[in-house]
Amino acid sequence: MTDNKWYLSTGNEADTVISTRIRLARNIAGIPFPSRMSAQQLSEVNRLVKNAIFSDPSAKDEYTYVEMDSLNSVTVAAMVERHLISPEFARMTDGHALILSKDESVSIMICEEDHIRIQVMCAGLDLKGAYERADKIDQLLGSHINFAFNERLGYLTECPTNLGTGLRASLMLHLPALEACNAIDRLSATVDKIGLTIRGTYGEGSKALASMYQLSNQVTLGISEQTAIDNLAAIAMQTMSQERAARESLDRDTLDDAVYRSLGLLKYARSMSGSEFMELISKVRLGIATGLIKEYSLATVMQLIIECGAGAVQEAARREMEPMERDRKRAEIIRTRLAS
Amino acid sequence: MTDNKWYLSTGNEADTVISTRIRLARNIAGIPFPSRMSAQQLSEVNRLVKNAIFSDPSAKDEYTYVEMDSLNSVTVAAMVERHLISPEFARMTDGHALILSKDESVSIMICEEDHIRIQVMCAGLDLKGAYERADKIDQLLGSHINFAFNERLGYLTECPTNLGTGLRASLMLHLPALEACNAIDRLSATVDKIGLTIRGTYGEGSKALASMYQLSNQVTLGISEQTAIDNLAAIAMQTMSQERAARESLDRDTLDDAVYRSLGLLKYARSMSGSEFMELISKVRLGIATGLIKEYSLATVMQLIIECGAGAVQEAARREMEPMERDRKRAEIIRTRLAS
Repeated sequence: MTDNKWYLSTGNEADTVISTRIRLARNIAGIPFPSRMSAQQLSEVNRLVKNAIFSDPSAKDEYTYVEMDSLNSVTVAAMVERHLISPEFARMTDGHALILSKDESVSIMICEEDHIRIQVMCAGLDLKGAYERADKIDQLLGSHINFAFNERLGYLTECPTNLGTGLRASLMLHLPALEACNAIDRLSATVDKIGLTIRGTYGEGSKALASMYQLSNQVTLGISEQTAIDNLAAIAMQTMSQERAARESLDRDTLDDAVYRSLGLLKYARSMSGSEFMELISKVRLGIATGLIKEYSLATVMQLIIECGAGAVQEAARREMEPMERDRKRAEIIRTRLAS
Repeated sequence: MTDNKWYLSTGNEADTVISTRIRLARNIAGIPFPSRMSAQQLSEVNRLVKNAIFSDPSAKDEYTYVEMDSLNSVTVAAMVERHLISPEFARMTDGHALILSKDESVSIMICEEDHIRIQVMCAGLDLKGAYERADKIDQLLGSHINFAFNERLGYLTECPTNLGTGLRASLMLHLPALEACNAIDRLSATVDKIGLTIRGTYGEGSKALASMYQLSNQVTLGISEQTAIDNLAAIAMQTMSQERAARESLDRDTLDDAVYRSLGLLKYARSMSGSEFMELISKVRLGIATGLIKEYSLATVMQLIIECGAGAVQEAARREMEPMERDRKRAEIIRTRLAS
């Protein structure tokens, strides 16, 4: 990993919004969906997408065409953690490929569930910026490729939940204070009613690890891209206000202690599981966002989250590791990062 | 507190022995025991002891005569924590006094349970040195005062458990590894059989806070001072060996992690109870003793233990404090001490 990655920058409203993600699903007219396509058709789609993206010679400076066959399992696991590919795509090796921008903000999975999945990520809140970037890539592809499109339905996709715009816009929110006052369930019920959904980004079950929640649109049919994004932005603004108010109402002394204890453990532990790390880094993030911790930045927190996934830790060690060894390596990565 | 206190030095066998304490109980012939004496007799004993100690003009450079009435409750509580006075003596204000050496290694309580309680403390293991110092003070007092002494019984004391030598020799041991392998109960049963006792120095019930145990002689009658001390030293050496062997058998990685997590919490917490502090500092002490932590010394640990008692914290703040405020102040003291 080099230092120009998108997650090393600090975006807008970073106190509560970790990142923005836009995803567009597209398929090519006249070719079966990936679930029913031949190896030859897969290779044809790869070629079409690759040629479209690299039709501009300068695209070589920005993008890389990555064949999944060329990656070892540790690298693939780390890519899943960085949301560059889906867990499903990670299992698709034979002949599959993706196109990746060097800063990792753009990822185009070829023949995942749909022929083309364009994803744009950026730090903080920037739905408009991320959408415009995805739209530009969509238009470039559209100028070379004949998309499967129906006047009445819109873009055709493998799964009916993506029919229409093929757009999934999502925000990764950091909501530790709303979580602490048990306000997530109510929030979830509210957003459901207006075609959005909120769920834990990490961890299983209802409680999100690290208090990180993904707020995204559910409806893609009968609604414009603009409306979907506007709805999401409106609810996000409201949620951010609520989270900020809830942070204000936390007992400052208790918060101060919890935040610094977490930092102390991160800086000194010699072994750390992924779930403990997420719990502690969430508190540190809250500490930075509320101004209690001044010696570290939100970008450092984001960098650590990226570096501390099980896949990333093994990628750093360039080999597979047993959990105990991995936990020690993770602790070492954290100490090194926080020592600087 | 200035920097020349006895507990700031590092004694022998400091990895397992925190401190040595010698106490001699003496009474004055012809004066009733403190429990039955008049205010006038109390004042007479004060005068006799004071005059004896300060008979040498140079004693003024070494000792201070402290009237309990002159001390506020916060200072008294801190003195109990530093073992300069007993909790019982702390409640004896009216007319009571003690003589204290400036480095706090010598404390002579006047009219606690007995007329005279000479106490000598030193860092690490030094029963011989501490006893010789106590003996010298005993001889000085004996050259001015006629002690209550019986040829057959030895020194007469209020409580029969002190009759004879009036000697209590004790070692404060740090036994985290023996405690971790549940070896304390067996050790306790063994030492009981040979007239010694071992008990937690801090905390209630059987489990000692901070894994600190006081090993001391129980028998004072029909045994010479030398034999009592030799027995204690022999059992101490054996216990120290066992503790060291137990430390060797601990899993190094687990120890490393536990030790550094404790250090991290001490360095970063914003609020810390006395009991949590003791638990953490015990691990840090073990870390220093086993060579895992090199950036701090055992003397710093001892200093912190002295500084972090509830009384000491309030003494530092020069006022009484509610527990929550005290916990924050304690955390601040720890951070400051460990930052240097």
